[in-house]
Amino acid sequence: MNFASDNWAGAHPSIAESLSRHAGGFAAAYGTSALDKEVAQTFNAIFEREVVVFFVGTGTAANSLAQAAIARPGGVTFAHREAHLIEDEGGAPGFLAGGARFQAIDGAVGLIEIDNLRQAIKGFAPGNVHAGQPMGVSITQSSEIGTLYELSDIAAISALCRENGLPLHMDGARFANALVSLGCTPADMTWRQGVDILSFGGTKNGCWCAEALVFMDPAHAREMPYIRKRSAQLFSKSRFLAAQFDAYFAGGLWLELASHANAMAARLADHIKASDKLRLAWQPGANEVFAIMTKDDSRKLHEAGVVFYDWKPPYSERNLVGENETLARLVTSFATTSEEIDRFGDLIV
Amino acid sequence: MNFASDNWAGAHPSIAESLSRHAGGFAAAYGTSALDKEVAQTFNAIFEREVVVFFVGTGTAANSLAQAAIARPGGVTFAHREAHLIEDEGGAPGFLAGGARFQAIDGAVGLIEIDNLRQAIKGFAPGNVHAGQPMGVSITQSSEIGTLYELSDIAAISALCRENGLPLHMDGARFANALVSLGCTPADMTWRQGVDILSFGGTKNGCWCAEALVFMDPAHAREMPYIRKRSAQLFSKSRFLAAQFDAYFAGGLWLELASHANAMAARLADHIKASDKLRLAWQPGANEVFAIMTKDDSRKLHEAGVVFYDWKPPYSERNLVGENETLARLVTSFATTSEEIDRFGDLIV
Amino acid sequence: MNFASDNWAGAHPSIAESLSRHAGGFAAAYGTSALDKEVAQTFNAIFEREVVVFFVGTGTAANSLAQAAIARPGGVTFAHREAHLIEDEGGAPGFLAGGARFQAIDGAVGLIEIDNLRQAIKGFAPGNVHAGQPMGVSITQSSEIGTLYELSDIAAISALCRENGLPLHMDGARFANALVSLGCTPADMTWRQGVDILSFGGTKNGCWCAEALVFMDPAHAREMPYIRKRSAQLFSKSRFLAAQFDAYFAGGLWLELASHANAMAARLADHIKASDKLRLAWQPGANEVFAIMTKDDSRKLHEAGVVFYDWKPPYSERNLVGENETLARLVTSFATTSEEIDRFGDLIV
Amino acid sequence: MNFASDNWAGAHPSIAESLSRHAGGFAAAYGTSALDKEVAQTFNAIFEREVVVFFVGTGTAANSLAQAAIARPGGVTFAHREAHLIEDEGGAPGFLAGGARFQAIDGAVGLIEIDNLRQAIKGFAPGNVHAGQPMGVSITQSSEIGTLYELSDIAAISALCRENGLPLHMDGARFANALVSLGCTPADMTWRQGVDILSFGGTKNGCWCAEALVFMDPAHAREMPYIRKRSAQLFSKSRFLAAQFDAYFAGGLWLELASHANAMAARLADHIKASDKLRLAWQPGANEVFAIMTKDDSRKLHEAGVVFYDWKPPYSERNLVGENETLARLVTSFATTSEEIDRFGDLIV
Repeated sequence: MNFASDNWAGAHPSIAESLSRHAGGFAAAYGTSALDKEVAQTFNAIFEREVVVFFVGTGTAANSLAQAAIARPGGVTFAHREAHLIEDEGGAPGFLAGGARFQAIDGAVGLIEIDNLRQAIKGFAPGNVHAGQPMGVSITQSSEIGTLYELSDIAAISALCRENGLPLHMDGARFANALVSLGCTPADMTWRQGVDILSFGGTKNGCWCAEALVFMDPAHAREMPYIRKRSAQLFSKSRFLAAQFDAYFAGGLWLELASHANAMAARLADHIKASDKLRLAWQPGANEVFAIMTKDDSRKLHEAGVVFYDWKPPYSERNLVGENETLARLVTSFATTSEEIDRFGDLIV
Repeated sequence: MNFASDNWAGAHPSIAESLSRHAGGFAAAYGTSALDKEVAQTFNAIFEREVVVFFVGTGTAANSLAQAAIARPGGVTFAHREAHLIEDEGGAPGFLAGGARFQAIDGAVGLIEIDNLRQAIKGFAPGNVHAGQPMGVSITQSSEIGTLYELSDIAAISALCRENGLPLHMDGARFANALVSLGCTPADMTWRQGVDILSFGGTKNGCWCAEALVFMDPAHAREMPYIRKRSAQLFSKSRFLAAQFDAYFAGGLWLELASHANAMAARLADHIKASDKLRLAWQPGANEVFAIMTKDDSRKLHEAGVVFYDWKPPYSERNLVGENETLARLVTSFATTSEEIDRFGDLIV
Repeated sequence: MNFASDNWAGAHPSIAESLSRHAGGFAAAYGTSALDKEVAQTFNAIFEREVVVFFVGTGTAANSLAQAAIARPGGVTFAHREAHLIEDEGGAPGFLAGGARFQAIDGAVGLIEIDNLRQAIKGFAPGNVHAGQPMGVSITQSSEIGTLYELSDIAAISALCRENGLPLHMDGARFANALVSLGCTPADMTWRQGVDILSFGGTKNGCWCAEALVFMDPAHAREMPYIRKRSAQLFSKSRFLAAQFDAYFAGGLWLELASHANAMAARLADHIKASDKLRLAWQPGANEVFAIMTKDDSRKLHEAGVVFYDWKPPYSERNLVGENETLARLVTSFATTSEEIDRFGDLIV
Repeated sequence: MNFASDNWAGAHPSIAESLSRHAGGFAAAYGTSALDKEVAQTFNAIFEREVVVFFVGTGTAANSLAQAAIARPGGVTFAHREAHLIEDEGGAPGFLAGGARFQAIDGAVGLIEIDNLRQAIKGFAPGNVHAGQPMGVSITQSSEIGTLYELSDIAAISALCRENGLPLHMDGARFANALVSLGCTPADMTWRQGVDILSFGGTKNGCWCAEALVFMDPAHAREMPYIRKRSAQLFSKSRFLAAQFDAYFAGGLWLELASHANAMAARLADHIKASDKLRLAWQPGANEVFAIMTKDDSRKLHEAGVVFYDWKPPYSERNLVGENETLARLVTSFATTSEEIDRFGDLIV
């Protein structure tokens, strides 16, 4: 029963097989091989338009280089208070974007409240150099606490961005999970709602290391080849990143894996709803389930071999968790089995 | 006949097999898995001392984070004029080390001439803030043009470093090739000669993406966990980096692959020596062979299907290459076959 | 009636006279002149210990280089939510400190609430590279909204800093105003309460451009000569910064000017207390007075020739200001006259 | 007899008087005062076009922010090997321009040899991210060793810049000295020859701290307000920078002071030419004279009270100075007297 993180899971057999299959022979380095180019075409097909794609090694790299692409002197990007790029990337986004700053926006259940965003942007009067200048907005889909922006939410945020001349970035570390949950297309969830730059994550969904920066507008990508190189994210044997994406997309594997992870999360949520001991902190939207339980129950679950993290309650939800309670984060993945889920269910009856 | 680069080669079957073997099950993320720890122990064994090891994704990352580890405000690292970190890493070493600079030192056949280094260091009077302050020395072994420092050369440079309180970094993108060529141990080629920090490369020698920063002195590694994270080089599924190193070291595979590549280079050099058309630019020390030929012959070889780069002559050797001549770089790897070499030999008789 | 800012005031005649007096003759450049050294001695006398002093050109430079002095990779400094270095320095502190971040701490009337600080520091578990690492705490004395930390407040914060191995920085842009208000010595307000690094401001109190970084502990100053140079803050004709400080300290001018500014602020506050139209937002501690009035009254005052800024209410005090009201910041300086104050008083009866 | 540097001189009485005159009253801060705007107009008049001017505190700041204005990821600016921004600014240009690099170009007597520049630019193939990308060219007028580019030299360099899409920056720390020496107008020496950005220095020529960044093309200046703020170079009491420039330009004072300094240098050079002991290293073009003498004679001059620096011979001129000889740099300024010069002349007969 391992619900620690979807990055504790390994690689899906098809991904591993693809890596082995492409191991032989010579291929041009640094992203110029035939396979690299082929996968770039696949991205075009998936997004139903010409996009500009850059492979990088980590999700932190994708988010940080997205910020570098839109960086301006004294620049500030707005993101949710619990956004990964504010709270969990060790300062990489600011460092790799040359001193960019991030302003935390509040909002319930991990989602930016648009009125707060509007207020925050207003705080930066044009030409007030003391405050700095807005440079972008970043949203996470699915969010850090497993919730989802509806398509209309994204459209509303992007409209506000456009009014203010700000590009909109989506941290899609769990892009596939959000996608299958909303039941829409990649185009629908991104550029059709006004998303300009996407961190497209494959690692958490069955690759071993496959992240991509996807630019809907080539203008934002212009300096990216140099940005990626100076950030040490240009891989010599890039074909192996391509090989992962190749298998990831083949036959819709990526959607299948995400669907499975989400189904496991839903099953887990059902057990929790049925439990007398645990309660759902909020309705899960993708593959992360947050449950509130007594500290004592948490200890017992750990002792029973359930692997999970006790989580710091989000600021807006800090009052949901009682004094002798804890918030547990339970993450499912392509590798989670229903048998595991049900064993967990048995423990919490 | 592909001599473009050792990073055009793929991954050795044993590496691929190890990745597949470790694909299943759950493992702690971010470098804390059992396999990560096991491989760290292997590094200790190989270096015959406790070292501190950090996996990163690219050779550029290894070199750059080494510089970040020793960075000082206004700091300057000395390296050979053609050093990869000066000429070929898109500014990453300076950028990721927070504004560090690099001063080029001349020396024949890709190797720092120690008198030039001594002179350069002397140029920085203590307390002269206008000039900045020395922060380290970096050597490449084997060098960017396939030559080697003798152990005594390394010892002499490190003695000069110590006199001046400067750490010594070795860019070991082709560490294994140098090692088998000198026939010494990893300890001999590094800390026993005074090397403090090593970029240990596995990618060019049969891994697909396996680079490590090895600190001989834990003091230099103190801030590295945070430096690596802020540089977006901490991999979530780090086990797959570990899995590559695990197979790389198992049964001495790494030395075997390097020996093969070097033998192929020697065979290639023999063909060139025997040729009437080509001549060796200098004696190869590892797996890179540089040959001078007429531009016409170069064109013919390309047309005959030989893949290689025409190379910018090193500054110190710029007069070796005649007006209507070109310098060809020919790189061998674990994947090079003697049959290929001999076919090339046939072309240049 | 100009209450826009103490940096709208000019230079005190004694400062101007000193600049003129030292204009002639040759003096060693870059901070090594006799006068530079003499003023450094004066700082020692004033602080009753050997301090290490660096002149810089702006208050933003002083604050930013203080952060650079204590910077660590992934580092985070804690400061009040409305701290100048978070809100009003265009990102300079993070940029000049190589990517440092700032975490906002709440607290009433512009002062850090120590429990919030303790909680925030606790949020950074040692070794949790994702979060980054604490690198310091910064307090502003007098605060951005004209309030004061008592000596015991400073001592309590510094005790918490010491428990966590964090240096304590004081932004003393209005150091003299705070000092005369508390009626203590510079030593009492700084190192005797555990302050490690001080941004010592002279500009707002009658100099034209005289700011100094004062290190109580030489260990923090070690790299500062190089940090200052790489940040373009080393002035060639540094004697002119020294000349300002020389006159500033002579005969206690600095304390006299600050006392005057504070007295003017107190007189202004008395008028406001007596007014039916305006009310004090909070009790002023130094030379900044904040008053709440109707938007209509604000407009009338502006029209009557009173120069001041309508201010964004601090987060903790956001409910003090009614819907059709505004918060006015009224700053006094060495150049404010009691006649001006009383004319303002007449306007608000 | 002080020939140490023109920044060992103080401030001209007219500059000091202007500072005193503008000391009183209130003026809008941060560069928005009436005087600031008036001086900006003066710059327009002097340059015979609308320029965009930013005051900064040091010459290093001016050079560094010029680089920040044109910075690109992986960017490289070309400058003479002995350029101040490469050799003497403690890494500030790279640091403040976010990791920019500088490539040294050789050329006799401190001036870029255009063929070397052409060659260097050619070394950067478009799209070769490993090398990085050219971002600009910087020349120093008068040069670091007191020589001058002819107008046609500047035009030739700017033509090469334009061919390659590179902005041309001029480090004019001694702009006035060059100007009066060439006998041309500011427009002639800058934009009429294709200079895009100018570091306009006043400090070395009689101000105490007055440097300006002058943009001929507003497009390059767009982000400068934010760049200047984040670099801590926006002065609150900016009127005092303006006051210096106001006096500096009034009645052509700046040209008068530079003419005097140059005349003193010429007189000094005449003495050296007439000397049996010293010889001119090269013909001085402005206010810096370089003389070769025996180490023994250098010692004697120092002992006789002549203040000057023994200088590291420029790379291209390193063979001019014999083994037991030294190269002396002798700088004149507005404050140098002909009596001093002649006393020096007496010492070297």
